Amino acid sequence: MQDNAVNAVEMKARVGAVRYLNTKPLVHGLDGAETPFTLSFDYPSHLADQLALGLLDVALIPSIEYFLGDGYRIITDACIGCLGPVWSVKIFFRVPPRQIQTLALDEGSRTSAALAKILLAERLDVRPRLQALPLGSDMRDCEADAILLIGDRAIHPPAIDAVEVWDLGETWVDWTGLPFVFAMWVARPGVPTESIAQHLMQARNRGLENLQEIAEREAPNYRLTTSECFQYFHDNLHFTLGPQEKAALTRFYDYAVGLDLAPSGRTPIYDDCEIAR
Amino acid sequence: MQDNAVNAVEMKARVGAVRYLNTKPLVHGLDGAETPFTLSFDYPSHLADQLALGLLDVALIPSIEYFLGDGYRIITDACIGCLGPVWSVKIFFRVPPRQIQTLALDEGSRTSAALAKILLAERLDVRPRLQALPLGSDMRDCEADAILLIGDRAIHPPAIDAVEVWDLGETWVDWTGLPFVFAMWVARPGVPTESIAQHLMQARNRGLENLQEIAEREAPNYRLTTSECFQYFHDNLHFTLGPQEKAALTRFYDYAVGLDLAPSGRTPIYDDCEIAR
Repeated sequence: MQDNAVNAVEMKARVGAVRYLNTKPLVHGLDGAETPFTLSFDYPSHLADQLALGLLDVALIPSIEYFLGDGYRIITDACIGCLGPVWSVKIFFRVPPRQIQTLALDEGSRTSAALAKILLAERLDVRPRLQALPLGSDMRDCEADAILLIGDRAIHPPAIDAVEVWDLGETWVDWTGLPFVFAMWVARPGVPTESIAQHLMQARNRGLENLQEIAEREAPNYRLTTSECFQYFHDNLHFTLGPQEKAALTRFYDYAVGLDLAPSGRTPIYDDCEIAR
Repeated sequence: MQDNAVNAVEMKARVGAVRYLNTKPLVHGLDGAETPFTLSFDYPSHLADQLALGLLDVALIPSIEYFLGDGYRIITDACIGCLGPVWSVKIFFRVPPRQIQTLALDEGSRTSAALAKILLAERLDVRPRLQALPLGSDMRDCEADAILLIGDRAIHPPAIDAVEVWDLGETWVDWTGLPFVFAMWVARPGVPTESIAQHLMQARNRGLENLQEIAEREAPNYRLTTSECFQYFHDNLHFTLGPQEKAALTRFYDYAVGLDLAPSGRTPIYDDCEIAR
């Protein structure tokens, strides 16, 4: 009995997600014992590493990481994207954008860093030297010409003298006419995922039906009012990967290859999300 | 000549406004020499003091200050109000609102402080002990159960563990069904203001026509994107004092009298703003 119970637990697929506010609607109600997988939480870049190492079977990974992997499949139409301003990913410029020579990057999502590099290079032909911005660092000690902040630090930025601020979701959408996709549910090759995919899509659907409840619960943790948090989920974020989002991923990948941010020759593999749904 | 020139300058009426972001659309284009008055900037509570002392003739004063004055007239239908969330006036609760015993108050607008007291007392029968929260203080040193922040500190709050956050504009509007009015242009008794009122209304009208330009110019100073700043002006704030706003001022005054925040027996005096316009 003891051994069987242990085996049953070990047999469960391992799914990884991030703890960020933007992910709460995607994992709504997934903490129960009814799911055919275990769900763990970590930083986005760690999730990608664990997926690559086989320590996870499915993970919500940043879109740039998808193209760094090999044989990865996008297993649902649940994603984290935006159709305009995303609110939580911004560049604060201390000098006019065309004049920046250094860009400090918030730790966290590599996709936002790639997006920043693409927008600066392709729109303005600007290729700044990059610096890491340690978590918990005092922003005043950072002398970079521009600073990329994500998450809470973008929504509630520390005191930085800026001459211009870009919301990277808005900048991408204005420029390309396409949505932007920050992260998707991705499986390693050879992992059977039909049941997992169904649970993840159901969780997203439940999340969308309960945005108000999620906002009420999460808002204070992020120093937001309930209505700000609801607005973030409802107006800023977008959780469905459809044809426009697929086109956006391809466009993003092409730019990434052009700037040597991803290897060439990759084509996104989509499980038939619509039918699975 | 010299004396006449000095007299001409001294004869100009003295108008005072605040430097806050919310006031930019009200004073758009007023820095020119064409106005029949001089415009100075100060803290809202200082403006009210200077108006009372006769050091200013007209000032944009917090609505609670209006009822503390005697014989004051509201000379235009230009105001700073909201019809829902105001975004820049919030209470951060460290314990559930019904349980708070102490409330720390951001320095600045006395109206927001009165509004906080009214909402807590009338809705929840909670009357916390008040503390001052010095500008520039480290929020972590403040042990109050709840903190009222306004302006930049409300939009980009420092790290505070909160269990609930109220947007006071939204809380008032949801509760009363009325807008809220934070500040109006007010004159001392005996000051001729028809020409001043016309300029102030024209400035507001020009401001409303140029919100995008004002947002582009001001956003970085407040660590906002242009679209966030535009949204703040366009969706959060409301610059016209009409019948609903007048009803809201009276309701606010009645609550203030009930809590001994204002003397009884005052009735707002409105110059005929519509005709002046």
